[in-house]
Amino acid sequence: MSNLTKDTTLISSQDLFLFLKAVFEANGFSNAHANQSAEVLIAADLRGIDSHGAARLEGYCRLIKAGRINPTPNLKITKSRGVNFTVDADGAIGLVSAPWAMAEVKNRTELHGAGFAAIGNSNHYGIAGYHAMKALDFDAIGFSMTNASPLVSVAGGKERLLGTNPIAIAVPAGKQPPFVLDMATSAAANGKLQIASRKEESIPTGWATDQEGKDSTDANALKTGGNLLPLGSNMKNGMHKGYGLGSWVDIFCGVLSGANFGPWVPPFVSFLQPLANLPGKGLGHFVGAWSVDGFMELDEFKQRMDVWIERFKLSEPLDANTPVMVPGEPEMIHYNDRVKNGIPLNNKILGEIRNIGSSFNVILK
Amino acid sequence: MSNLTKDTTLISSQDLFLFLKAVFEANGFSNAHANQSAEVLIAADLRGIDSHGAARLEGYCRLIKAGRINPTPNLKITKSRGVNFTVDADGAIGLVSAPWAMAEVKNRTELHGAGFAAIGNSNHYGIAGYHAMKALDFDAIGFSMTNASPLVSVAGGKERLLGTNPIAIAVPAGKQPPFVLDMATSAAANGKLQIASRKEESIPTGWATDQEGKDSTDANALKTGGNLLPLGSNMKNGMHKGYGLGSWVDIFCGVLSGANFGPWVPPFVSFLQPLANLPGKGLGHFVGAWSVDGFMELDEFKQRMDVWIERFKLSEPLDANTPVMVPGEPEMIHYNDRVKNGIPLNNKILGEIRNIGSSFNVILK
Repeated sequence: MSNLTKDTTLISSQDLFLFLKAVFEANGFSNAHANQSAEVLIAADLRGIDSHGAARLEGYCRLIKAGRINPTPNLKITKSRGVNFTVDADGAIGLVSAPWAMAEVKNRTELHGAGFAAIGNSNHYGIAGYHAMKALDFDAIGFSMTNASPLVSVAGGKERLLGTNPIAIAVPAGKQPPFVLDMATSAAANGKLQIASRKEESIPTGWATDQEGKDSTDANALKTGGNLLPLGSNMKNGMHKGYGLGSWVDIFCGVLSGANFGPWVPPFVSFLQPLANLPGKGLGHFVGAWSVDGFMELDEFKQRMDVWIERFKLSEPLDANTPVMVPGEPEMIHYNDRVKNGIPLNNKILGEIRNIGSSFNVILK
Repeated sequence: MSNLTKDTTLISSQDLFLFLKAVFEANGFSNAHANQSAEVLIAADLRGIDSHGAARLEGYCRLIKAGRINPTPNLKITKSRGVNFTVDADGAIGLVSAPWAMAEVKNRTELHGAGFAAIGNSNHYGIAGYHAMKALDFDAIGFSMTNASPLVSVAGGKERLLGTNPIAIAVPAGKQPPFVLDMATSAAANGKLQIASRKEESIPTGWATDQEGKDSTDANALKTGGNLLPLGSNMKNGMHKGYGLGSWVDIFCGVLSGANFGPWVPPFVSFLQPLANLPGKGLGHFVGAWSVDGFMELDEFKQRMDVWIERFKLSEPLDANTPVMVPGEPEMIHYNDRVKNGIPLNNKILGEIRNIGSSFNVILK
């Protein structure tokens, strides 16, 4: 219960899952879609990515109410050749559309060794890592990206053109837990600014700018017209690389899928309207998988991954008391703790979701 | 001739190409392999990536002489299923093995919509971007990564475990030049430290550490046991992300291909010996391509890419006199200049390659 503080309440993941599922059903989702949506959110809360779990429920409900998320979508493959296909998500929540596409990615991967889906006309899909990790169920390497509401400036610019556009990769190992990289391509996620703002603290240089594009340490910089900065934070330290990575995500998720891209990606918050003359529909994701067996015997690969992971974990640490971790390990530690001891939900979020529940006659135990 | 300074001499790209080709042939390469190798190096010099062109010739020749690059390799596909295959490069130079694999990637992409090669038992492959850009020749999206000699520490560690492990993506556009991202996953490349060292300047915080893992502004930090830092530069600004990206590259290029990975990747310089008890052979690359037509009609995609590129270039700049550029644009500007006006070769490098030429009776015009 290491995560319990006076600001949080422990909720069992099973209770929270049933609550989230019931709220999605009350919003008109089918049993299967509600189940799937709740599963993605619970995965975030269990893995310690608190900004992308139950905390997002209110935002999703508002978008459903505003007619911007379709609770009863008819998902379709609109184009396909070999390993590649495009999905029109019909305005679905991404929590549903990305797993729907990954099921077909699995079929293509079994058939051809890989499968890739560009998903358009979709909405926010939760944590990128969940969708990449679906490939671990069939012992493949998973890949997932999404574009998102523009908050991030580009190298040399002062406009918001990119979302925090995450990239996730999940790689199976043998005795070791899988390698899971799940990272925003901005220097810091918006959630980190919100936490600093709640604590009335300043933020480090390199996360955000003011509206003139000048470095800002104000945790409220985004609220006053500022931008998030791409990974790299400034020109000398490589912000053109973070800009390049975020652009790659935007092109695969937005341009290739028929969704919106760049400044046209619809905002997550329902009180902001999408721009006029959009180049596409909704926002987009790109998910896929590579089978290992076309490259190497799976057992041999898993043994080699164990060697990789064990060597990196044994790296000489900067601080003798803080061992080096591999990507996915911090989230795994949260997961193991929270599955057993419950999810420490922020009391403000808890109040918020209880209120949402009440409005649908759904009670969180 | 904007790049010409007192330290450089303009050499025509055609003369330099013929010289490089002749030196590779004098080293025992076949006509085809010498041609291919010279083409990759010239691409780097034309695109302004001076650290990866003719400047590398001496290093390659030393590795051939030391028996660590095989001048007459017998490249083989050793495993294959559907879109995926593994290449044993038989100790080839990467300048040859990666294009060899990309030719087969093209076949698989035409057949199945995508193709991916893990290449092991290989050596340094020049600029990542060249190999990704080969896919533009068949109107596909190209992808390329390589692992490299360990110079980069991991988040929380003070050992060198990763190379500068670049990622490249090339995306075709319509009227606009292609989008080409080609980036190291470290904050700065080694070449930048070498330039600062020659000028006896200090380097910015965030590029390197001393041997204790503490931030260093010494341009000679690597020579005294220090490390390069992953993209992100420090914990607050997301160095765990650069570490994660470099790890992804290492896993795809090293673990999956049967090559070495992490600290075991053989050093580029011939005077340093590979470690004992290696987990694989040589170093590795991962190259591939996605066809667009399984996702969207190619013409429509190219039009949408033009919209993307034009919108990003029109982004409001920080400095009114410095327009925002898109990934690949700085290299394209160099290319257009240097194809026409010649390559401004550093005089020290020029002397070095003339000496190499002399030892093989090859003369640079």
